[in-house]
Amino acid sequence: MNNVDLKNLIKKQKKNYSLDQSFYTDDYIFQLDLKNIFFKQWVFVGHISRIPNYGDYFLFNIGKESIIIIRGNNNSIYAHYNVCRHRGSHICLEEEGNKKLLICPYHAWSYNLDGSIKSARMMEENFNKTEWSLNKCNIRIFEGLIFINLSDNPNNFDDFISPTKKFIEFHGLADAKIAHRQFYPTDGNWKLTLDNFHECYHCQPAHPEYCAVHDSEYIIAYGAGSNTGPTSKKFEKMLNEWNAKVEKMGHLTGEYVESEFNDYSRSAERTPLREGKYTETKSGKPIAKLMGKFKDYDCGYTSVGTSPFNSLLMCNDFATLFTFIPVSTKHTKVELMWLVHKDAEEGKDYSLDEMIWMWDATTIADKKIIEDNQRGVLSKEYRPGPLSKMEKGLEKFKSWYLKHLDLSLS
Amino acid sequence: MNNVDLKNLIKKQKKNYSLDQSFYTDDYIFQLDLKNIFFKQWVFVGHISRIPNYGDYFLFNIGKESIIIIRGNNNSIYAHYNVCRHRGSHICLEEEGNKKLLICPYHAWSYNLDGSIKSARMMEENFNKTEWSLNKCNIRIFEGLIFINLSDNPNNFDDFISPTKKFIEFHGLADAKIAHRQFYPTDGNWKLTLDNFHECYHCQPAHPEYCAVHDSEYIIAYGAGSNTGPTSKKFEKMLNEWNAKVEKMGHLTGEYVESEFNDYSRSAERTPLREGKYTETKSGKPIAKLMGKFKDYDCGYTSVGTSPFNSLLMCNDFATLFTFIPVSTKHTKVELMWLVHKDAEEGKDYSLDEMIWMWDATTIADKKIIEDNQRGVLSKEYRPGPLSKMEKGLEKFKSWYLKHLDLSLS
Amino acid sequence: MNNVDLKNLIKKQKKNYSLDQSFYTDDYIFQLDLKNIFFKQWVFVGHISRIPNYGDYFLFNIGKESIIIIRGNNNSIYAHYNVCRHRGSHICLEEEGNKKLLICPYHAWSYNLDGSIKSARMMEENFNKTEWSLNKCNIRIFEGLIFINLSDNPNNFDDFISPTKKFIEFHGLADAKIAHRQFYPTDGNWKLTLDNFHECYHCQPAHPEYCAVHDSEYIIAYGAGSNTGPTSKKFEKMLNEWNAKVEKMGHLTGEYVESEFNDYSRSAERTPLREGKYTETKSGKPIAKLMGKFKDYDCGYTSVGTSPFNSLLMCNDFATLFTFIPVSTKHTKVELMWLVHKDAEEGKDYSLDEMIWMWDATTIADKKIIEDNQRGVLSKEYRPGPLSKMEKGLEKFKSWYLKHLDLSLS
Repeated sequence: MNNVDLKNLIKKQKKNYSLDQSFYTDDYIFQLDLKNIFFKQWVFVGHISRIPNYGDYFLFNIGKESIIIIRGNNNSIYAHYNVCRHRGSHICLEEEGNKKLLICPYHAWSYNLDGSIKSARMMEENFNKTEWSLNKCNIRIFEGLIFINLSDNPNNFDDFISPTKKFIEFHGLADAKIAHRQFYPTDGNWKLTLDNFHECYHCQPAHPEYCAVHDSEYIIAYGAGSNTGPTSKKFEKMLNEWNAKVEKMGHLTGEYVESEFNDYSRSAERTPLREGKYTETKSGKPIAKLMGKFKDYDCGYTSVGTSPFNSLLMCNDFATLFTFIPVSTKHTKVELMWLVHKDAEEGKDYSLDEMIWMWDATTIADKKIIEDNQRGVLSKEYRPGPLSKMEKGLEKFKSWYLKHLDLSLS
Repeated sequence: MNNVDLKNLIKKQKKNYSLDQSFYTDDYIFQLDLKNIFFKQWVFVGHISRIPNYGDYFLFNIGKESIIIIRGNNNSIYAHYNVCRHRGSHICLEEEGNKKLLICPYHAWSYNLDGSIKSARMMEENFNKTEWSLNKCNIRIFEGLIFINLSDNPNNFDDFISPTKKFIEFHGLADAKIAHRQFYPTDGNWKLTLDNFHECYHCQPAHPEYCAVHDSEYIIAYGAGSNTGPTSKKFEKMLNEWNAKVEKMGHLTGEYVESEFNDYSRSAERTPLREGKYTETKSGKPIAKLMGKFKDYDCGYTSVGTSPFNSLLMCNDFATLFTFIPVSTKHTKVELMWLVHKDAEEGKDYSLDEMIWMWDATTIADKKIIEDNQRGVLSKEYRPGPLSKMEKGLEKFKSWYLKHLDLSLS
Repeated sequence: MNNVDLKNLIKKQKKNYSLDQSFYTDDYIFQLDLKNIFFKQWVFVGHISRIPNYGDYFLFNIGKESIIIIRGNNNSIYAHYNVCRHRGSHICLEEEGNKKLLICPYHAWSYNLDGSIKSARMMEENFNKTEWSLNKCNIRIFEGLIFINLSDNPNNFDDFISPTKKFIEFHGLADAKIAHRQFYPTDGNWKLTLDNFHECYHCQPAHPEYCAVHDSEYIIAYGAGSNTGPTSKKFEKMLNEWNAKVEKMGHLTGEYVESEFNDYSRSAERTPLREGKYTETKSGKPIAKLMGKFKDYDCGYTSVGTSPFNSLLMCNDFATLFTFIPVSTKHTKVELMWLVHKDAEEGKDYSLDEMIWMWDATTIADKKIIEDNQRGVLSKEYRPGPLSKMEKGLEKFKSWYLKHLDLSLS
């Protein structure tokens, strides 16, 4: 496939149909996706509570790239490519740890935590240390969330975060800590994986846990975000009443949708949980300390998408953060991170099992669904099929993706 | 490699020599083989006794394709591509089972067993159910044998089966049942795997079990089918005497060979077993109920090839059916199925061990032989070698294959 | 990548910098490396003591090639491609063994140990046995060392061995035996693997065992061979004094370096071990019988490189021989072989643990280092870095490699 073929293929994609096979199976398209889409987005990869002390680090690995996220002086946090400037060896070999100095295990070139070179033995006289700092990766911390961007010319972070800012801030993630992390490696193309996350048409047949916590009318109209399904008068009423109640409490309400095509694919909204549910647990009862600016339980739910690669799904007392990392054409690394108030104690203030119950079960089910979808899409008989009224979110994501890819080929 | 190169390479292949390396190792040629040869043949993939009841199904998986073979009403049997018309998910996830309705596990689109759509929730108003039946795979049942054809324009089944018809019918496979199934996954190109099956030159060094049951003169002259080796006066006499005896019993005799090049590579013949052997077992003694139109043991053997991908090797009281499925350039799935009379009871009427003894041992040996052949063929020093007088069957298969491939490139 | 692109890329490589990413990751370049470099070198693959008796053989396997090294009559040793001339099967299936006749397990074609065909059943009348001998691989035995060459037009062996001859001969390897063999499969491109062996810049941070046995000034100036690091007055003095002492003993001294570009990349030198060390062991004490022409311990060390793919590192009482085999773009098979005097008895004359201690630990460490290097080199941010004063050996190897590759493209 060359770029002309690909542009023609993009043109041939039909509105309200799934994509042609190649978009889910072709290695060349996957490389373009990485380069033109994934590497250009600001991606949330961790929370500062994972590296509380000077020298604490963790690695963010994606495909052939490895990034060292490390805490330096004055609470600065750095992101460096894990590649020694001498002959290219990885420098940090463990998933996480603590380093006061970044010493390459090969020839002992050493770097300060800010990436500047400290020492390199036996170099020629014309060797200029200042030219050989570690390659920096763009990094920004917002409300305790660590965002990185692998582009050489990253978009402005403040513009990027602006529309979802107040939704995230309300939940006080800066004062949170990680209660649990879990990986769900998924043998599916990243777009098949995200298609799954952009519609709740499958929720009713596939996710009893999700349906126990969320109202069936919400699922129809809003399951994958504002107006991603058919209008529901019943849910509209429910939402209006809840908005009125919540505004009286002084809490945040409302939503954000992209009004025109741009580099981002962001969304945010606050909605009520199913009648009688305080939070996203089996019993529906509160389980941890209230977070952020919440004065009392408002029985609401905040859903924020900062990019296709991240979703932040937040209750009053905990948050579930998703990272979707395209690893290869047919493999995606899905990571979930549960955050609670930094003072909440496990066993006393919250039970881990209750907290992770819904999204753990739901993500395990999605992993299987996506893998079976990928298998079928490989068939010579697969053809794009018609989308339902509940798959408007998928169509939106799809058209954003196609336009992005098309522009990158010009 | 492009098609012009390939046509030149085909032209360069020498009569009575094995093929050039590329035919056993090149991914592009493998894709052409699949498309132009395998997908165009009627292939036997199972016996109706595997799915006796309404809703019983099994999957036939080959490479990226998965076919649902399912029994519906009125003893109709359907073959559908296992690909939901909505977004392409696999529908049946287990190797076999029973389904009264084919419900996609993703979004619960449901299909009747005949493939027509039953329900799809929440579709747009212009959604026309009749356009979204499951993709049908061509299927025909003959004498209880399930044949499928993955082509869009399949050859006429009746023409295809006509010359081997009476040989198969005589054995009464429609009134048989599967006694045993076994897979022999083989790390060799499908042509190396079938080369092995198209000559009995290797039988004497490699297959003591086979040689215990079959006469050494038969092996020389007929081991891979009628006249695939040098003429044997001794075996001719043996065959003539046996034919006379068997005709007196009212049983079938004779043979079929393709007289000119066509889309098929079929063969059939009836021959005597080694002196004193009634059937293809270690002791040579009868072990199960007589099948089909046999009135008494005639100590004969019926060998039928319906395509390169199937061989039906039938004694008076059981049949061993072979399926060779090209999975990837260097991998072939070999399946053996043993059939007995539907009323025969294991333990009482037959012993499984005795029945599978010969072909199980022989196929295990062949798997190893083929894999060692594939390893050697990868060498830069491999060159096509001269075929012996006992490899005429292989030469026949080879020239049919080359002509087929050549025509498909025009 | 085509050859024009590659020639341009070669031109762009900077002196005293590591290579561009493609040289360590590109499959096309790897195939060229195999064909134009590895297959054209004389490579040491074993010692005659491994096959002491008539019919003893071992296989040398590299990628898709398998070579039978077998002892015939009159102490002749043959090397044959392990590919039957009939249909290409491997003939010898075990790593090593004894065969009085090479019989193909497929159709029983048999070959004499010299590769000539003995028998082939049932061939056509025009079959001429003399045309179907096994494909010979070039082989030469020198001082008990088995060298093979996979080229069709091998360079003259005597020219090849001439400059390192006296160094090898002095150690009496012809009267040695294998005490131990060990594989260190390494997930790194062969050039990354050899880069590691062409510099001792990493020895101080990574190899405490090596540094315990070798003088720190030797490591700086000579660690990867004569003048591969900065000049050390201290080591020069040490070397001169040792040379004088050793010449008085009647032992060999001196060194060989290639004076101009040619098909080979050979080197040899004799140097003193660290003060107080007799041999390359933990204690530094002699552990086995003196070998070759040594009259007494001279506390010296002989390092010979016959090609990039072999190093012979020899003490007075044992030798450690290295073979580096490029298997695939990112995998190299490293084999170490320890040789002692043929009369030395394990347990009595030497302890295996002591003998292998240094190079076993060092090669395990190198395997890890190389694999972490390969991981980092895959990053989109990897760029060639500046070499130190102690990496002159690497630069030499690199420029030899680039020139060779460039010439092969003309």
